[in-house]
Amino acid sequence: MNYETASPAAMRQLFREGKLCCPTSGMCAGYAQANLVVLPREDAFDFLLFTQRNPKPCPVLEVTDPGARTLSLIAPGADIATDIPKYRVWEHGELKGEYTDVSAFWRDDFISFLIGCSFSFEAALIEAGLPVRHIDEGRNVPMYNTNIPCLSAGRFHGNYVVSMRPYTPAQAIRAVTVTASMPRVHGAPCHIGDPALIGIRDIDHPDYGDAVTINPGEVPVFWPCGVTPQNAIMASKPAFVITHSPGHMLITDVKNVDLKD
Amino acid sequence: MNYETASPAAMRQLFREGKLCCPTSGMCAGYAQANLVVLPREDAFDFLLFTQRNPKPCPVLEVTDPGARTLSLIAPGADIATDIPKYRVWEHGELKGEYTDVSAFWRDDFISFLIGCSFSFEAALIEAGLPVRHIDEGRNVPMYNTNIPCLSAGRFHGNYVVSMRPYTPAQAIRAVTVTASMPRVHGAPCHIGDPALIGIRDIDHPDYGDAVTINPGEVPVFWPCGVTPQNAIMASKPAFVITHSPGHMLITDVKNVDLKD
Repeated sequence: MNYETASPAAMRQLFREGKLCCPTSGMCAGYAQANLVVLPREDAFDFLLFTQRNPKPCPVLEVTDPGARTLSLIAPGADIATDIPKYRVWEHGELKGEYTDVSAFWRDDFISFLIGCSFSFEAALIEAGLPVRHIDEGRNVPMYNTNIPCLSAGRFHGNYVVSMRPYTPAQAIRAVTVTASMPRVHGAPCHIGDPALIGIRDIDHPDYGDAVTINPGEVPVFWPCGVTPQNAIMASKPAFVITHSPGHMLITDVKNVDLKD
Repeated sequence: MNYETASPAAMRQLFREGKLCCPTSGMCAGYAQANLVVLPREDAFDFLLFTQRNPKPCPVLEVTDPGARTLSLIAPGADIATDIPKYRVWEHGELKGEYTDVSAFWRDDFISFLIGCSFSFEAALIEAGLPVRHIDEGRNVPMYNTNIPCLSAGRFHGNYVVSMRPYTPAQAIRAVTVTASMPRVHGAPCHIGDPALIGIRDIDHPDYGDAVTINPGEVPVFWPCGVTPQNAIMASKPAFVITHSPGHMLITDVKNVDLKD
């Protein structure tokens, strides 16, 4: 089976049956992938409000009804508890374990949030003829903590985490227009140029992911990153959370091109 | 005092002091106005989810923290319970009364939703050189019930309500591009042309507002309307709701031009 050309439903079936467990990068070319956050109802209002107030780092693609294990919009019929290759279970902010199936943990007060991912806009950047450095260098995207505050909501608060891709000024302008048309997957950059202006001390030492080469004549371009909501959740140490394991995303039935406004 | 050129804060002060009570159309030119929905916390999660799932008819500009009577984003310092000229109080789906001040009803579990309004995109249409028929004819915008379903959320469900403005095909295309750039105030039209295709039987008899002239060579252009969330709330008959009174909106400190993406 060629994972790059396979259908999202076929890949989800492999994960559901426990026949495959690996990162989803590169799978099902053209289809959007999504981050997962599952919270009990008692924390879900605050988190939904956090995403409403911070749509750039937290672009929500679907929120389930309480207790629903099945998605209806972005991957109709997908089982949230089995169709992602790897999950993390957290209690009071501590990682309790990684699992390929979280059916055993499921409760009827769980609400699932599926959040857009930069894989989608990277596909659009490449389609527009723009290089994506970390892909070209075979690394993970560099991500940084910043001093840009999120609007807090109930127990959830924190600063933006950003991802960075280096571009020439002309490329950066094109990258702004390409990603501005995709607000459901983070949209336009939030900063271009001097990292210190947003509280980044050392561009060569990202807080998450890998450093990439910035060539002479290039400027760093920063986008709001989906690690932001995960950080906000972990900082508040809720009693119980399930997330996807980094890189092990939900593969949706939504094409990246359909995430354009 | 010239209400058209007055500052939003000055107008809110007049309403707060009970010195003026009238519709806000035409006041504070250039500034966005907003619809109000106040719900107890027990209903607020479902309603927030309803707006998340239906962003076109329900574009949320601000959601308060539980119990907060003061806005912090779109009209910093505004008192939600006094700064709107007229309110409606509803119990179990029935109108209990209209008030110019709802302080006496305030509870510490109230959550307020401020929702974008088509006044903002009408200003952009006029600025783009497009006529707005109901303004030219001195009438209220015609609004219609449709067969376009909202995605339901908990107790809230219903069909789109749409507003209509007639345009020539060339004007309609321009109207699409102008409003598509303003997703926080309903965005692009949801239908152009044959009213029957979205369940409207008689274009000359709107369900809300007034009929307007459609000239030969013009087609009706339909936008998602802010009456949609109000209808969804009323249909579910929640125990207690406060809304603004029709036409008596919150005047915000946000300029219409800042609602463009």
